[in-house]
Amino acid sequence: MTVVTLSTDFGTADYASGLLHGVVAGFAPHARIVNLCHDIPRHDILFGARLLERAVPYFPPGTIHVGVVDPGVGTDRRPMAARIGNQVFVGPDNGLITFWHQKAITRGETVHLVNLNRKKYWLADVSNIFHGRDIFASVAGHLAAGASLDDVGEVFCDPRLLQNDLPRIEGSQVLGKVEHIDHFGNLSTNIPAELIQPRFAWLEIVSTTIDRLDKTFGDRKAGELVALIDSSGYLAIGVTNGSAANRLAVTAGCEIKVVLREVQE
Amino acid sequence: MTVVTLSTDFGTADYASGLLHGVVAGFAPHARIVNLCHDIPRHDILFGARLLERAVPYFPPGTIHVGVVDPGVGTDRRPMAARIGNQVFVGPDNGLITFWHQKAITRGETVHLVNLNRKKYWLADVSNIFHGRDIFASVAGHLAAGASLDDVGEVFCDPRLLQNDLPRIEGSQVLGKVEHIDHFGNLSTNIPAELIQPRFAWLEIVSTTIDRLDKTFGDRKAGELVALIDSSGYLAIGVTNGSAANRLAVTAGCEIKVVLREVQE
Amino acid sequence: MTVVTLSTDFGTADYASGLLHGVVAGFAPHARIVNLCHDIPRHDILFGARLLERAVPYFPPGTIHVGVVDPGVGTDRRPMAARIGNQVFVGPDNGLITFWHQKAITRGETVHLVNLNRKKYWLADVSNIFHGRDIFASVAGHLAAGASLDDVGEVFCDPRLLQNDLPRIEGSQVLGKVEHIDHFGNLSTNIPAELIQPRFAWLEIVSTTIDRLDKTFGDRKAGELVALIDSSGYLAIGVTNGSAANRLAVTAGCEIKVVLREVQE
Repeated sequence: MTVVTLSTDFGTADYASGLLHGVVAGFAPHARIVNLCHDIPRHDILFGARLLERAVPYFPPGTIHVGVVDPGVGTDRRPMAARIGNQVFVGPDNGLITFWHQKAITRGETVHLVNLNRKKYWLADVSNIFHGRDIFASVAGHLAAGASLDDVGEVFCDPRLLQNDLPRIEGSQVLGKVEHIDHFGNLSTNIPAELIQPRFAWLEIVSTTIDRLDKTFGDRKAGELVALIDSSGYLAIGVTNGSAANRLAVTAGCEIKVVLREVQE
Repeated sequence: MTVVTLSTDFGTADYASGLLHGVVAGFAPHARIVNLCHDIPRHDILFGARLLERAVPYFPPGTIHVGVVDPGVGTDRRPMAARIGNQVFVGPDNGLITFWHQKAITRGETVHLVNLNRKKYWLADVSNIFHGRDIFASVAGHLAAGASLDDVGEVFCDPRLLQNDLPRIEGSQVLGKVEHIDHFGNLSTNIPAELIQPRFAWLEIVSTTIDRLDKTFGDRKAGELVALIDSSGYLAIGVTNGSAANRLAVTAGCEIKVVLREVQE
Repeated sequence: MTVVTLSTDFGTADYASGLLHGVVAGFAPHARIVNLCHDIPRHDILFGARLLERAVPYFPPGTIHVGVVDPGVGTDRRPMAARIGNQVFVGPDNGLITFWHQKAITRGETVHLVNLNRKKYWLADVSNIFHGRDIFASVAGHLAAGASLDDVGEVFCDPRLLQNDLPRIEGSQVLGKVEHIDHFGNLSTNIPAELIQPRFAWLEIVSTTIDRLDKTFGDRKAGELVALIDSSGYLAIGVTNGSAANRLAVTAGCEIKVVLREVQE
């Protein structure tokens, strides 16, 4: 049973997200269709790209991920599908695959990209403003029903990728930023564990210092700041039973400095 | 695999929407159950009726649509099911089918209505305030499992339909209104494309004028007002990369005038 | 087709709830996975416990309910699974099963509890802060695919249960409280119908009195306060076509006194 996930900025206040189920199911009656997230902040491609990077590894091989954060809908931005490693993306070519693609390249996995220019795999009437329904859900349904990437489009090689805000390394300091604030007020950063472990000495954010890296929220008392590696392998900052975003009055984009201990030789 | 969609004003802050899945699945273990929308504004039958009109065409033939916006639950309003064209509605007889029904009649499709008065298709204990669970989900489950409309109720012929706020045509003007503001701040209207194309000259809303009908948001620069035909075939007004609702300080019900060009002969 | 429900306080603003689908589906490709609720108030175990109590009876026998409201994640709180009556719970041992468990014991149903200490049923990499994904969804997937409770853990007998805020009975008065305010502003209480029917005389909440128990909202005019038995069998207070929470300016925890009529002999 092929899995098709849906990640959009449509919200759930109307029928838009539900319609995608109808279209996919029309072509692939036996697919499992999963709402990965419909509350991506409006037009926030970076958020969508991080979401896909972090979610994809937990889905079975062959899963088709429809990603629709598409401020350029109706312009000449390319509709695309891609096999990246052993899973598939369908959506606009605007950078949503950035981090997923980077990890795949790093691991030596193959990437196969196609431009969705075969109209027979689209719905018969394509609106100018709802390609999620008329192109992406339709193509995903055909792929889930057995069509191949080369059926639905033509190969291309130059996907648009986001300027990747990688953290900078300056001597014994790693300079990164808060990328996202989650439901609990925890701060996600763009600093991967491998850059700071095991040499973490302390970190600085706004005018606050956190002097150790803990394993879990329970390592600090309720109300205390805690720095830890989150469930996606990145540095995160929280408050045990509280909200770091409120405590520090921090928004996405805020800078973080991690100071590393000298390596003893 | 029969599809059952769920559209309610229950919200998602508790278990009410999830319960419907349990009840349907209990009778129809193999049905696909889709959340079409659970965030219909509370008691807003007009919203629900527009939602069903616009969503139904994208679901496979035989789909069963459970619609529960039911301020009259527990009173003597009729519980109903209907085959409208090649799909099925289950819910209260309070106007939710209005626009879907109208389109079907216009197209010459058959409509078959039944009053859900056969208690053997309800749950054993029926509460006075949760017919969505105890009657509608239960009946939908039985229908998805193979029961016929005539099994679950008795034919009737006079469904309640909403007073249909059709736009008025006065000479070369079409007078309509904003019906709904979507997640992005776009304004949906009750003016169908066929009333204004290809003679659109300009439109007036509050004290603003828009002097052309575009194809897509990308036809205007970021921050500019744009009028276009939305993905359901109705006039809509947006702001490219912005919110028309905020820009114009408009709420649902606001009047719109479209002025048409004279036909050249 | 085994049903797996998901109830969490993750919200839906990111991919966390969707990931659980991916993990369960990876082990149990044919399970039906239902979002029961992802908007449980953060860390509100009482809310989660009431939600499970009220939802479980509407799911088919054999359903597996994953409940993750887990402020103690990463500490030494026990991960658990339980067969309670004919359904199954998977989640932290922190009281989420309290009311469901109590009802089962009252009915003489069997309860079988296991400590999830068999790491072969967890994901290979277990984070300290996302046991919902790494332990509970993984175990639920294995159970849905046919593993037994005794495969996935070791029997224990002392589950943590919430101090149960039962209503007090003092002479002809029942003293309870508002436990929850729903989407419509209706007040749920912890007073079960059997304590007050058929002797209900009047109730008092803040400085207001309601002098009869109605069957449905329609028994009162729009805007009037109404007391009734809700769809879960508990006393509830609403306003017909309005919000009791707004009318009475009441929050969860507010006290309610029900005065009973003397029994006539």
